[in-house]
Amino acid sequence: MARVAVDALGGDRAPDEVIAGALEASARGVDVVLYGPEGLDTGGLELAVAPTAIGMAEKPSEAVRAKPDSSMVAAVRAVADGKADAVVSAGNTGAMLAAGLLHLRRLPGVLRPAIAVPVPTRRGASLLLDAGANADCRPEHLVQFAVMGSVFSTELLGVAEPAVRLLSIGEEPEKGNQLTIEAHALLTEAEGIRFAGNAEGRDLLRGAADVVVTDGFTGNMALKLLEGAITELLDLLRTEITATARGKLGGLLIRPAARRVRHELDPDTYGGAYLLGLRGLAVIAHGSSGRRAIANAIELAARGAEHRVVERLADRLPEREHARSV
Amino acid sequence: MARVAVDALGGDRAPDEVIAGALEASARGVDVVLYGPEGLDTGGLELAVAPTAIGMAEKPSEAVRAKPDSSMVAAVRAVADGKADAVVSAGNTGAMLAAGLLHLRRLPGVLRPAIAVPVPTRRGASLLLDAGANADCRPEHLVQFAVMGSVFSTELLGVAEPAVRLLSIGEEPEKGNQLTIEAHALLTEAEGIRFAGNAEGRDLLRGAADVVVTDGFTGNMALKLLEGAITELLDLLRTEITATARGKLGGLLIRPAARRVRHELDPDTYGGAYLLGLRGLAVIAHGSSGRRAIANAIELAARGAEHRVVERLADRLPEREHARSV
Repeated sequence: MARVAVDALGGDRAPDEVIAGALEASARGVDVVLYGPEGLDTGGLELAVAPTAIGMAEKPSEAVRAKPDSSMVAAVRAVADGKADAVVSAGNTGAMLAAGLLHLRRLPGVLRPAIAVPVPTRRGASLLLDAGANADCRPEHLVQFAVMGSVFSTELLGVAEPAVRLLSIGEEPEKGNQLTIEAHALLTEAEGIRFAGNAEGRDLLRGAADVVVTDGFTGNMALKLLEGAITELLDLLRTEITATARGKLGGLLIRPAARRVRHELDPDTYGGAYLLGLRGLAVIAHGSSGRRAIANAIELAARGAEHRVVERLADRLPEREHARSV
Repeated sequence: MARVAVDALGGDRAPDEVIAGALEASARGVDVVLYGPEGLDTGGLELAVAPTAIGMAEKPSEAVRAKPDSSMVAAVRAVADGKADAVVSAGNTGAMLAAGLLHLRRLPGVLRPAIAVPVPTRRGASLLLDAGANADCRPEHLVQFAVMGSVFSTELLGVAEPAVRLLSIGEEPEKGNQLTIEAHALLTEAEGIRFAGNAEGRDLLRGAADVVVTDGFTGNMALKLLEGAITELLDLLRTEITATARGKLGGLLIRPAARRVRHELDPDTYGGAYLLGLRGLAVIAHGSSGRRAIANAIELAARGAEHRVVERLADRLPEREHARSV
């Protein structure tokens, strides 16, 4: 049974929702250990004492170096020291990335670890990476993202031969910027992945592919745009619906349908973002995560450990690193 | 009264909807001349004969060079020759860009012409540029986009001192990729614009700024993502609503509200994309434009000519070109 270290103080709704989520994951059979201050009421779960916390606004690298005993860094170190198989935090994303690089370190052959986010679509999840770890990328980084995303998709999302697409601004190989044009060429030649060509922005929510690769700037931009567009559109619809009595009645009647839509597009289903390319599995839950998102993130982390995702990434990556080095 | 050359054969719904839109713009007082084949029924509008057409899938530069007598190229040349004050086409975007560069040429001092698109938001239009003319940009290009966007926003959208934001993945100046970090520094120092800092993807539909600058890859990606997200979400909602009898009734009741939402976010309100930085005003209407979008595009083009937008761009640009050259 996989053992997951959970940062009890990470996230906007910590520690209550984090503990509730950890209890739910524990009830599902995961061996959870919470990292937090002495005396924290864990509802009976094991507590490893970590007295300080890293705030959402702190500078990542500085905070990680200054607070080795913080709940987040201690939980990451637990994985590095072999005391846990995976780590989950809903805290500061940059700090998790910094802590992962510092304490877990990169797998041999990995040029750049990437943040992978399962984007809910009508046809199941599309794994988008990089979602923000590397704002500037080179074409060979995107090829590694494709390999890492394919391994994750197969092992954790159960997709047999994941189709990979490159996020660009046209389907033709010669459309895009310098990065995507060169990456397209490399992806076409890459072995061990099923490259299906470019995807455009409008294809993303449609579930164009199992894995969508892009640089961290574009990936982060895309996620925030989608998030913003969905929120804004539903708000606007609510405003217009409640502006008339007729609309209000209609609004009541469509409420279950609206709820199903929200549920279908709910990022909490997949619990968060996955840091791939490190010598240990690290999961960053959304800052606003509630218990369900936390529980799902912990369960997916445990499943990742059981499926030996890190070892499988290690197996698949070094071979393709010979061609070009950092 | 401004005279606008209109490509009668451009767009998915040409020539019927284009002619209908041209008639509507003419009724609003614009002097319209249609470019199309001999014998075309223009409903009484002036016809300038242009026997061939450029298709949506043709290679832009090749097509523009091979077909100087096409309806699109002839309409662009009318502006270059002083026979018209502005040109409108709903045809091949790349071909319009190529025709503009070849026949209108860049204004002195302009490094890169940009495509500016008014994005409908809850608080009026945000002008997004570059929306796809330049997939790879340098920081100084983004500064020029800010200046061109500000002039357009003031002269054509009536904003007195337009706020400019830089599209990035964090509000802090040091967040983003190399391009946005350098552009942020240049924009902070730039004179003659009101730079208000970075905007994130989620702010775009909220109407974060009057002008939003970005490279053409990111801008095009953002537009297509928004378009896709809105379509997909409304589709999904419709599917869920019509899945039950209760939902169907509710759907009928909220129909007027849904229509208001669609109207509020309808890109047709602004008619299209504006090619800024050329020695003549060129407007690219959406390929699927109906008569309303065409009429609005023609009217906005005429207004641009009357406000001497091109001359004002010329006045404002060269001064800031001295600092760095191509």
